[in-house]
Amino acid sequence: MNTASISRYPVPELAQLPQDIRERIEKVQHKAGFIPNVFITLAYRPAEFRAFFDYHDALLLKEGGLTKAEREMIIVATSAANQCHYCVIAHGAILRVYAKNPLIADQVAVNYRKADLTVRQKAMLDFALKIALASHQVNDSDFSLLGEHGFSADDIWDIGAIAALFALSNRMANLINMRPNDEFYTLGRAPKT
Amino acid sequence: MNTASISRYPVPELAQLPQDIRERIEKVQHKAGFIPNVFITLAYRPAEFRAFFDYHDALLLKEGGLTKAEREMIIVATSAANQCHYCVIAHGAILRVYAKNPLIADQVAVNYRKADLTVRQKAMLDFALKIALASHQVNDSDFSLLGEHGFSADDIWDIGAIAALFALSNRMANLINMRPNDEFYTLGRAPKT
Amino acid sequence: MNTASISRYPVPELAQLPQDIRERIEKVQHKAGFIPNVFITLAYRPAEFRAFFDYHDALLLKEGGLTKAEREMIIVATSAANQCHYCVIAHGAILRVYAKNPLIADQVAVNYRKADLTVRQKAMLDFALKIALASHQVNDSDFSLLGEHGFSADDIWDIGAIAALFALSNRMANLINMRPNDEFYTLGRAPKT
Amino acid sequence: MNTASISRYPVPELAQLPQDIRERIEKVQHKAGFIPNVFITLAYRPAEFRAFFDYHDALLLKEGGLTKAEREMIIVATSAANQCHYCVIAHGAILRVYAKNPLIADQVAVNYRKADLTVRQKAMLDFALKIALASHQVNDSDFSLLGEHGFSADDIWDIGAIAALFALSNRMANLINMRPNDEFYTLGRAPKT
Amino acid sequence: MNTASISRYPVPELAQLPQDIRERIEKVQHKAGFIPNVFITLAYRPAEFRAFFDYHDALLLKEGGLTKAEREMIIVATSAANQCHYCVIAHGAILRVYAKNPLIADQVAVNYRKADLTVRQKAMLDFALKIALASHQVNDSDFSLLGEHGFSADDIWDIGAIAALFALSNRMANLINMRPNDEFYTLGRAPKT
Amino acid sequence: MNTASISRYPVPELAQLPQDIRERIEKVQHKAGFIPNVFITLAYRPAEFRAFFDYHDALLLKEGGLTKAEREMIIVATSAANQCHYCVIAHGAILRVYAKNPLIADQVAVNYRKADLTVRQKAMLDFALKIALASHQVNDSDFSLLGEHGFSADDIWDIGAIAALFALSNRMANLINMRPNDEFYTLGRAPKT
Repeated sequence: MNTASISRYPVPELAQLPQDIRERIEKVQHKAGFIPNVFITLAYRPAEFRAFFDYHDALLLKEGGLTKAEREMIIVATSAANQCHYCVIAHGAILRVYAKNPLIADQVAVNYRKADLTVRQKAMLDFALKIALASHQVNDSDFSLLGEHGFSADDIWDIGAIAALFALSNRMANLINMRPNDEFYTLGRAPKT
Repeated sequence: MNTASISRYPVPELAQLPQDIRERIEKVQHKAGFIPNVFITLAYRPAEFRAFFDYHDALLLKEGGLTKAEREMIIVATSAANQCHYCVIAHGAILRVYAKNPLIADQVAVNYRKADLTVRQKAMLDFALKIALASHQVNDSDFSLLGEHGFSADDIWDIGAIAALFALSNRMANLINMRPNDEFYTLGRAPKT
Repeated sequence: MNTASISRYPVPELAQLPQDIRERIEKVQHKAGFIPNVFITLAYRPAEFRAFFDYHDALLLKEGGLTKAEREMIIVATSAANQCHYCVIAHGAILRVYAKNPLIADQVAVNYRKADLTVRQKAMLDFALKIALASHQVNDSDFSLLGEHGFSADDIWDIGAIAALFALSNRMANLINMRPNDEFYTLGRAPKT
Repeated sequence: MNTASISRYPVPELAQLPQDIRERIEKVQHKAGFIPNVFITLAYRPAEFRAFFDYHDALLLKEGGLTKAEREMIIVATSAANQCHYCVIAHGAILRVYAKNPLIADQVAVNYRKADLTVRQKAMLDFALKIALASHQVNDSDFSLLGEHGFSADDIWDIGAIAALFALSNRMANLINMRPNDEFYTLGRAPKT
Repeated sequence: MNTASISRYPVPELAQLPQDIRERIEKVQHKAGFIPNVFITLAYRPAEFRAFFDYHDALLLKEGGLTKAEREMIIVATSAANQCHYCVIAHGAILRVYAKNPLIADQVAVNYRKADLTVRQKAMLDFALKIALASHQVNDSDFSLLGEHGFSADDIWDIGAIAALFALSNRMANLINMRPNDEFYTLGRAPKT
Repeated sequence: MNTASISRYPVPELAQLPQDIRERIEKVQHKAGFIPNVFITLAYRPAEFRAFFDYHDALLLKEGGLTKAEREMIIVATSAANQCHYCVIAHGAILRVYAKNPLIADQVAVNYRKADLTVRQKAMLDFALKIALASHQVNDSDFSLLGEHGFSADDIWDIGAIAALFALSNRMANLINMRPNDEFYTLGRAPKT
């Protein structure tokens, strides 16, 4: 087991956390088999914890025109641009699982333009990166182009909002030196069978 | 009254919103005398609305080592770097009010290095800008330097988290073409008396 | 009255200046009701002062296809890109006055792409920003595009030359820590009646 | 087996290659169990192939102050900055094998500043990135700093030359759309036992 | 003789120019043996012509702590950063002549950090480049550092003002496609004897 | 004769070098009349020396769709972007000789967009610069565009590979402070007769 620090800030004991937060974490632990460090490290600030995961769930658990794998592609591509250690490793794992593709996460992290993606998905990531890196230049022609690829206005909100949420998340992880769990590095790497 | 569009997306009617959101908005309206457009435009997505304002309140209404004016300085400086129309104008107004200084918001928006700030406040904004623009380079010496200026580890989390939240907020406002209310342009410009 | 320093360099007494410079300043003072700091701070170097204001007048007082408000838009947009405290505040005020629009200067300073401008004016500012930030890439297609928006070759010279003059002016103001007069912050903010 | 194209350019048949190149490739195939795509795709140009691998061997097989794992760190970190799909994936695998560490390659690729490295190794990568991204600014103080970390002048040549060789390699791989073999994605990921 | 166009804009006939401008040009022609294109191309706008050359003379013909060669170094280094064809070629020639050094101009244009300059001259050019590229970051420590190298406050104004004037000049030359005279390419290249 | 150092590293005596390297150098010396410093400085590392010049010869001495002058244009333009003292000066000289044009090297070094080149050559350099500065963005439309200008797929490999080789070469020269021979500054400057 890796004993390196997972945050610059104190990491709370599960038992000492408010009940709603503890239950939220235990539910994830039950599903994943371990507690992803983003939960336990952000729990240092309960009110921010609740808002962050509410935001996360609102964008990633909702129905919509983007598949679960596509949402993770947005996270991985923009987090790589922001050099966010935690988010690239952890969401890379989730992307591999959702996409049932052991190669896709590393491809998207290094250079999504060369990844095994559809033209539509590359257009989606072009826009996500523009939100991540130069949102002041977003304009009507971006919306037209995405429309030509079949994205609705609500899909475009979803793309932009996921990129925006991880603009926050990447900065928090970089601020506190959040370390990904070792488990994420290998999750989903076995080839689809 | 300005009739220009305040969002690329449909703007909900107050009466049609879920009660908790309507009450939250009416409370702000009562206090400010008008509904800031960030509330009514983001209400298009109720779940994201709730998470966003919970996050906002968790960081901006809490106690802590930063004054209310200092928190607004962080918002204005980073939002200017992201060229976010809504946030610079609206939070510029709030900064003028909290700081009781009609000049400070424009100064911080144009170039905080030349603004009428203390050395400590400039160090705070140097760090906020680093979170906004190059968070992957944050390191121990940033924490040491802020410590020398009297910021506690929790203050540094606050600085970083506010910059991170507005990294999200700026991108959402740029995504939806959020327009600031005309009222914000003049709020707090009368000199302190 | 604000007693902060208005320049890193000695600020001459009006009475000690060469007569032509004194008269030029008094004429502006008579018109504006106060002496804009750019005059008195640059007067530290009389020969450069004369050349600067001759250049300024040659571009801003001449007839031509650009309105006075449009010329100020160029100054505000490029000075914001250069983070020039004096020029954004002072020419923002002049822009509000010429455009009879209390909102326009802040909009152009934060992100002209989202400002209440015509498509033609945004094309003008796209070109002005290219001159300000990447003039080595100016090419024939820039001229064609501006031509399609109705700008003559002489109008394009004017756009480029104003952006070029404030490339100089912004750097001088940043060099000497030129401080805008407090009066500029509020000038022209009363709504048109 | 993945049937996606591994190069924009024709990929030669092993049997048709000049004997020295064929032998060189068969030797690698024997050792690795597969032919890394960089060999077969670059063999399209035999003379360049020979020079490239001679250069590679001169820097990576020689004795010297840098461990084999450290040389691969330089390759992974600079190739990530250049967004080179092939080099990050393939040399990431080699780094995991040499370092006997299943986590290190992803860490270095995302943000070497947060990776499980020594202070000395981070100084080595700071310099490698400077060679990769801003070699015109290299100066005496870079050499002094590396000297303080125990690097000899010859070690510094090695660091710089490896970064320089992969400046070439990354650009070639991006030019021809070189695709990494699927095998590299999982190589060395089993934890050290 | 080269018949390529020397400007995008009409080039006036010497005989048709206002007398003061014609005399100014003839004086330069007499001294140099040819009319540098900056004179005849900018004469298309007489009022701007007068202001530009007044500014030029105020900074380059005055007494002061910088040698004539040092002033030209500032012009060449900043014009190279702005990729200004005319200014690098023409002022490169003047620099060779003033410095009596046939190598210096090309060295400064490519990378002044590697040029045959004193430490003091490199500090001067570091500051000139900061004015050219990031003047909003100029601060007190820049002034202190230059002071340590023996530059007075007035010398620093000169360095900054020359960099600022050529920020203008480079942009005008790029705007109008100003072409340097063929004569400049070889002027001063004969070794000092 | 210039006695300044030509490398940060020891410069070997010709007599002490391995015979193949000595012969290679003497052949160049015989042809050029002097030993270009790149040979004697890189000979400090014989194995790398051989690989470098093999690579160089494979790309620059081969037959192909690019003229010798065009290959040197690629070197000069990309080396200027990398601010490589040695390569701009030395290959600028070679470009002047091959192109029989005393002006072209300085033009290409300062801003190839304004140089006396054909539209086809400017498209070639646009691509070379993309390889030099942003190779991760190379895509199919770059190949289409070059195809429209008459470049074959093999020509495009040549353009990209020359830019890639000098990405290496520029970094090595910047690493070791390689100094160009004084002879290069004037070579080929006499007008074609």
